[in-house]
Amino acid sequence: MKTLRQLGELALLRQLTRTLPSRPDVLAGTGHDVAVVAGTAQHDLLLKSDAIVQGRHFLAQTPPRQIGHKALARALSDLAAAGGEPLWALINLVVPRTEKNTRLLALYRGLAALAHHHHIAIVGGDTTEGPTLELHVFVAGRAPHGTVRLRSGAQPGDTLFVTGALGGSLRGKHLRFAPRLAEGQWLRAGRWATAAIDISDGLATDLAHILEMSGVGAEIQTEKIPIAAAAFQGLEKEGSGFSKDWKKGARLFPGLGKNHAGFSRAWKQHAALAHALCDGEDFELLFTVPQRKAAALVRAWRRTFRTRLTPIGVITRHKQKLVWLSGGRPLPFRGTGYEHFR
Amino acid sequence: MKTLRQLGELALLRQLTRTLPSRPDVLAGTGHDVAVVAGTAQHDLLLKSDAIVQGRHFLAQTPPRQIGHKALARALSDLAAAGGEPLWALINLVVPRTEKNTRLLALYRGLAALAHHHHIAIVGGDTTEGPTLELHVFVAGRAPHGTVRLRSGAQPGDTLFVTGALGGSLRGKHLRFAPRLAEGQWLRAGRWATAAIDISDGLATDLAHILEMSGVGAEIQTEKIPIAAAAFQGLEKEGSGFSKDWKKGARLFPGLGKNHAGFSRAWKQHAALAHALCDGEDFELLFTVPQRKAAALVRAWRRTFRTRLTPIGVITRHKQKLVWLSGGRPLPFRGTGYEHFR
Repeated sequence: MKTLRQLGELALLRQLTRTLPSRPDVLAGTGHDVAVVAGTAQHDLLLKSDAIVQGRHFLAQTPPRQIGHKALARALSDLAAAGGEPLWALINLVVPRTEKNTRLLALYRGLAALAHHHHIAIVGGDTTEGPTLELHVFVAGRAPHGTVRLRSGAQPGDTLFVTGALGGSLRGKHLRFAPRLAEGQWLRAGRWATAAIDISDGLATDLAHILEMSGVGAEIQTEKIPIAAAAFQGLEKEGSGFSKDWKKGARLFPGLGKNHAGFSRAWKQHAALAHALCDGEDFELLFTVPQRKAAALVRAWRRTFRTRLTPIGVITRHKQKLVWLSGGRPLPFRGTGYEHFR
Repeated sequence: MKTLRQLGELALLRQLTRTLPSRPDVLAGTGHDVAVVAGTAQHDLLLKSDAIVQGRHFLAQTPPRQIGHKALARALSDLAAAGGEPLWALINLVVPRTEKNTRLLALYRGLAALAHHHHIAIVGGDTTEGPTLELHVFVAGRAPHGTVRLRSGAQPGDTLFVTGALGGSLRGKHLRFAPRLAEGQWLRAGRWATAAIDISDGLATDLAHILEMSGVGAEIQTEKIPIAAAAFQGLEKEGSGFSKDWKKGARLFPGLGKNHAGFSRAWKQHAALAHALCDGEDFELLFTVPQRKAAALVRAWRRTFRTRLTPIGVITRHKQKLVWLSGGRPLPFRGTGYEHFR
């Protein structure tokens, strides 16, 4: 018997999902960004659920429209990775009885605006009294039969791409991001990618999911990783946030050494990289493309999107071995992304 | 600006759902037991979400297998009312980090056993840390195109039927009930019913939903309402539970009078009736059948099921007017069922 603090989220999920019933019409179940089940002859059906909890994914003072936006956008980000088209959503609301209806109405306006933008119908849900405000979002969508992109298709030699820039999402992006639905559907339609995931728990953790489900390894050129400006914010000035960041950097990059304290350029770069690898809630797409298609993808992408696209490494055949490189040499990095209960 | 305690669940839901986006492929959205959307040429797709929260729908000492059973069974009960076939489920778990994994594993065993029994695949979900244990269940299912039974089809003259017996579910049934899926699907296949709902908030409240959505009224012969033995439990002996029940009975049935205190047979009958009308969590089916089919339905039902089936009243054309009768005379009853936040 263990508490979840001792066990961690990933080990818990492995235990809970070990013996769940399935059906022959389930094409992809637990362990993927979205579930894929047989729909019509033309389309597979995609099912996804997600949750946000006050004090964890948003705060009492977060503008309520942004809370509603984030709740739906998170679930849509998973559909985006799979290349799916979201169609219908249900919302479970858990709310204390002292809550103001005006806050909830504003929250629903944020939710409805994003749903409207993506032509999604909100068709139901449930409202329950509980100790703190939560939103649980269920989305159903579709993709042409057999075209859904999962975490499990990466092949040795594939090039790893990431959209946008990573790190520091907590400084604002996590409440305002636009799920990469157009990009994900375009990738699916062109059959460019062999595997994909959205970065919700940090590149380090989500890349590990692709490696595990695909049975492959990866080498990442860390200097190529696009780091968001927000990941550098606050690193300039000393303060509580800074010293926390310093400790994090020193812990994650043992090679940096303790006498490396201060404001050196190299130290800042490593601290920002730690944010990019571990912060989570980037909601960018991470995907693999056969090496022979990589150059053509970049050209086609740039004709279609202004969204940044960056090749950051290569898939190897060394099962679940993840090598971080810096200037061609291994970077001793021992961080992982966000994990619940830890 | 109002708190939810002032507003109540039903008024809140009316406010929140007033301006939600829809799509042409939504056949029934918010306001129904389940959402119905266009699936294939043969089948409509049914979508439902539901939630249970510790301290509200179950307790810290509730056997965890029963918690898991109840979480899924509640959502299935809604699909049963619609006549749907559940196929796939996703589970969102909210859980404190001090929770024991053994409790969660037992909970999942209860969930998986019920899913297995009804050939439902559990295909995904989400796990989040939060202040108290909660399960959010999302079920997708199907029914032959155009055959889903909603709350909105009741016609004047229809006979009202209820399955099983009502009241006192909190004494145990709410954790162990079998959702009436077989009965609901049989009713749908035979096109017997014009409207249906599952009784989750009490007969008084759920009947009002049918009347509102169908634009009709009803006359109920209260002496015909099947009252569960559990609704009489504890009424015999004086004690805190008894005096609470007495107050409830006196408040709900003003005609009974205050000098009616004690253990009279009439008083007990009324106290038990109040339980049957208001307790909620019965998870029985309440449905309407054209009067000319009512006798044939009862005969066919008895050949097929051992589940109790009782005609309790008739639909009238008096919009949303609900008349409770006792011995042919109006019974002054002013109770409603369970409502969140009140």
